[in-house]
Amino acid sequence: MTIERFEDVAPRLVDVAMGRTPADLVIRGARWLNVHSGEILPDTDIAVVAGRFAYCGPDASHAIGPNTVIVEAAGRTVVPGLCDAHMHVESGMVTVTEFCRAVMPHGTTSMFIDPHEIANVLGLAGVRLMHDEALGQPINVWTQMPSCVPSAPGLEEAGAIISPADVAEAMTWPGIIGLGEVMNFPGVAANDPTMVGAIAATRRAGRTVGGHYASPDLGRAFHGYVAGGPADDHEGTRAEDAVARVRQGMKAMLRLGSAWYDVAEQIKAVTEMGLDSRHFILCTDDCHSGTLIREGHMDRVVRHAIAQGLKPVTAIQMATINTAEHFGLEREIGSVTPGRRADFLLVSDLAALRIDAVYARGVLVAEAGRLAIDVPAYPYPDSAKNTVRLGRQLAAADFTLEAPAGRNEVTARVIGVVENQAPTRALTVTLPVIDGEVPGDLAQDVCRIALVERHRATGTVTNAFVSGFGYRGRCAMASTVAHDSHHMIVVGTDAASMAQAANRLGDVGGGVVFFADGEEKALIEMPVAGLMSVERAEIVAEKADRLIAAMREAGCTLNNAYMQHSLLALVVIPSLRISDKGLVDVDRFEIVDVFV
Amino acid sequence: MTIERFEDVAPRLVDVAMGRTPADLVIRGARWLNVHSGEILPDTDIAVVAGRFAYCGPDASHAIGPNTVIVEAAGRTVVPGLCDAHMHVESGMVTVTEFCRAVMPHGTTSMFIDPHEIANVLGLAGVRLMHDEALGQPINVWTQMPSCVPSAPGLEEAGAIISPADVAEAMTWPGIIGLGEVMNFPGVAANDPTMVGAIAATRRAGRTVGGHYASPDLGRAFHGYVAGGPADDHEGTRAEDAVARVRQGMKAMLRLGSAWYDVAEQIKAVTEMGLDSRHFILCTDDCHSGTLIREGHMDRVVRHAIAQGLKPVTAIQMATINTAEHFGLEREIGSVTPGRRADFLLVSDLAALRIDAVYARGVLVAEAGRLAIDVPAYPYPDSAKNTVRLGRQLAAADFTLEAPAGRNEVTARVIGVVENQAPTRALTVTLPVIDGEVPGDLAQDVCRIALVERHRATGTVTNAFVSGFGYRGRCAMASTVAHDSHHMIVVGTDAASMAQAANRLGDVGGGVVFFADGEEKALIEMPVAGLMSVERAEIVAEKADRLIAAMREAGCTLNNAYMQHSLLALVVIPSLRISDKGLVDVDRFEIVDVFV
Repeated sequence: MTIERFEDVAPRLVDVAMGRTPADLVIRGARWLNVHSGEILPDTDIAVVAGRFAYCGPDASHAIGPNTVIVEAAGRTVVPGLCDAHMHVESGMVTVTEFCRAVMPHGTTSMFIDPHEIANVLGLAGVRLMHDEALGQPINVWTQMPSCVPSAPGLEEAGAIISPADVAEAMTWPGIIGLGEVMNFPGVAANDPTMVGAIAATRRAGRTVGGHYASPDLGRAFHGYVAGGPADDHEGTRAEDAVARVRQGMKAMLRLGSAWYDVAEQIKAVTEMGLDSRHFILCTDDCHSGTLIREGHMDRVVRHAIAQGLKPVTAIQMATINTAEHFGLEREIGSVTPGRRADFLLVSDLAALRIDAVYARGVLVAEAGRLAIDVPAYPYPDSAKNTVRLGRQLAAADFTLEAPAGRNEVTARVIGVVENQAPTRALTVTLPVIDGEVPGDLAQDVCRIALVERHRATGTVTNAFVSGFGYRGRCAMASTVAHDSHHMIVVGTDAASMAQAANRLGDVGGGVVFFADGEEKALIEMPVAGLMSVERAEIVAEKADRLIAAMREAGCTLNNAYMQHSLLALVVIPSLRISDKGLVDVDRFEIVDVFV
Repeated sequence: MTIERFEDVAPRLVDVAMGRTPADLVIRGARWLNVHSGEILPDTDIAVVAGRFAYCGPDASHAIGPNTVIVEAAGRTVVPGLCDAHMHVESGMVTVTEFCRAVMPHGTTSMFIDPHEIANVLGLAGVRLMHDEALGQPINVWTQMPSCVPSAPGLEEAGAIISPADVAEAMTWPGIIGLGEVMNFPGVAANDPTMVGAIAATRRAGRTVGGHYASPDLGRAFHGYVAGGPADDHEGTRAEDAVARVRQGMKAMLRLGSAWYDVAEQIKAVTEMGLDSRHFILCTDDCHSGTLIREGHMDRVVRHAIAQGLKPVTAIQMATINTAEHFGLEREIGSVTPGRRADFLLVSDLAALRIDAVYARGVLVAEAGRLAIDVPAYPYPDSAKNTVRLGRQLAAADFTLEAPAGRNEVTARVIGVVENQAPTRALTVTLPVIDGEVPGDLAQDVCRIALVERHRATGTVTNAFVSGFGYRGRCAMASTVAHDSHHMIVVGTDAASMAQAANRLGDVGGGVVFFADGEEKALIEMPVAGLMSVERAEIVAEKADRLIAAMREAGCTLNNAYMQHSLLALVVIPSLRISDKGLVDVDRFEIVDVFV
């Protein structure tokens, strides 16, 4: 199912188009959803050879030989395979292979993945592993080279550093399509040398620079960011965000992920304000396995976009040709036309995007929502699997915070989780001192949080307080998914449970675990870099359900409670976070004391 | 006026956008024609530094320093500089430099030139000369590597051959943007190895393959051509041609040249049939100097497109962003947005496209229809100037056709010129024999035609007959512009005049000359490859006017009479042509006798 280069098979395509040799596959009697012209054309035959379209037109009889597979479309619509223009496989907690298995039945045939998470754990070598895994997939998986590792130099130490030289090297790899989201937007506007260097290396290679401008400020900072070169952005949330990006010559990437709902507002730029739709692109950014299994992937995004009032053809353009053109792949993917990879869907209800069959490179890969092919697992090396290095067994004492001498209460800085939002609040709370230590105060919904260094086995544990989870009783949750440096975040109500949870993840090589009353209530093992399971998405989704149930049972009622947990070390988003260097005031970009 | 690469100046753009350093140029209070969003936005300021846009937004005050040039747009519209997506400089009979001088006042700031003519005379070395001249221009001139030299191997011998290896070499040159029009469309559909090789070399380099499918047949031959890889086509004439190309994933290039009028019909695909306009592109293909001087260039095409019912924004998109995206230059040209080259027009009447000023790379290059800068001539080497090699003085005897012995009349194959069309008719005419030779018969409008070999000084003269010019009296016209092999075509009523004209061109190094009654009535010297003058376009246009006047005076009433003359050796277009190998039946692709 590998694909030969167009120039190496072009004569075979011509031979099929001319009727000199038979096609491998002919689809007969289809409605042709043509993203180039914006039309839907009836009575179209499509001939495929060497994994590429060779002929699209009224009659492919001349391309049929004794071994040609013939599929009667019987009036169903042939739609180009869907593209996810920006996404992180790690968000699904599964490998690239497993992610592909999960999304192929949903019509995704091209993904642009940014392995930012593994880069924070394993650096360039980790990117290479996912890049190589990506190249072996039956669908097209291009890799965006992560640009901002660590996310916040000085405020944290990640497992690795990505330099402009690393970016330049990656640009020579066959599956690298561009630079991943340039998240350090203040750095771009300030001409930070690492940002300037990474963007320059990408542009020198003729590749696309992915953007990530996570601010509502459309004034000078935005203009400075745009001038620095990012070519797209998926961080907009309001219609005005999308409008501003497109007017500035960027592509507005509209995101519908498991916890991102940024299409409905922004698409009004097209449906209400009438902007040209060609520079709007759909993506998911982050999808949990449960979303993939239960709701879908790019099919879900396209359906949602149609539900917002887009014509089906326009919505599909935003997930096919618009994406292809953005990455310079317009001759390769994104439409059902000669020369392109034969990635397409047979759709029986266009408005509902009911996908009967999915073909990738001319091969039937899914039918009626089920995989039709086998996809072998990618053998991750041991070096990618033993990444949780605690250096020692942790004890309850590692998770206690001593009060300043002679105090019976303290004023503490507390990370305040905000429902349905990524930013936290910097709270100041008065907490009791008990036996010389500060255990938190469940009555005020303040429990303990610890950041366990896990890349270099330093044994460092940073302790602080967090509010908003609502935990009751003795419990703790630990996770090695801890954006972006991916140390280990432990949140709990008592130190012993926290030590138990942390040690458990050390034993299994990472993942997420929940303990309550001394018992393991849920575990998702993620042995690959402490970020990805090697199990099926269905299994991971079930385990994630158990995790959420365990959190609920312990009193946590947050939406996206697991995500909230895993973002508490994301020291690029305001206001108060935790890192291996201490408690971080993100508004002032400095380390602060827990006690005021 | 050279332009630095984006990645080398990006920090300066950011500094200007952020207000840390002043811009070179600020345009204030403009209407911003935004080709990305399809909008026209009022009250926009634009800041330029290092030849690129740094800021486009509501207020560029922060980018103004003591040395910043400030231009008050006062509500005029800022329009991206216009792009000609496919054209031959040689058609203007002037050098690249002079062509640029002529078109800059008309708003053209990017040209994609295919030096197919010089390639037929001087091969790869000739392409390199024009490529190098192109790189030195104040506007952007990218070169398409000619693909089909000679046009008809076996039926003619041009001055040079372009091989797939030549194409591969050219793809490494800095100014090569793709492969020039692949004219040998039967060759593509037949997997001719030269065509397959040239296309493969281009695709391997990641470049755009230009198409040229000059046939009304939209059946199998067309599909075979499409499958072979050409990414655009400018040979369509009917709406259905444009529709077919776009549906097949090609760009429909609509052409308005001096003698091409292919926009009005084809644009109905958009204006009447409602196809998405994004994959339609405007170009000129061939413009004479007179057209450039008197009517314009891409401004003329855009005005014409607007007159056909397109919205101005849509028409301008077809000459800016659509072109840029097609060639993978969307981050470089084609819009007024940060990072792109500061190529733009100040337009005081958008619907009429009245261009007050033209800026290229941030420099005012033309104002009120006049050049505002000096452009030095490119020094063509002697090797490019001594290309008309006749080997000897020609005499009247070289231009006589002896009748078969003992005949007093003969039946001859005669090339029949068709008014306003490129194809000729293959006529059969009975002609008188006088003194053993066949002088033609002016009563039947049949005069003499000769093809004089001029590349290798073989002294070969091929004689035949042509009808349609209407010449009377003693006259002859000779031209070393003789598509595509560019030998010398001489058409005349008497052998002595023909010899006189041919020798004259040998003396001046090529061009076009008209003799009547033994006197030189008009001459356009074209010393560069026998194809291009070194004079100003205005001068060339005047000389061309005198030529046309001389032809008229001698009885020729054809439209585009000079072009008809210069196409008589174009042995790829039906039906009867002349080459250095003899009279060519283009329908049967074989050499035929003059006398039946």
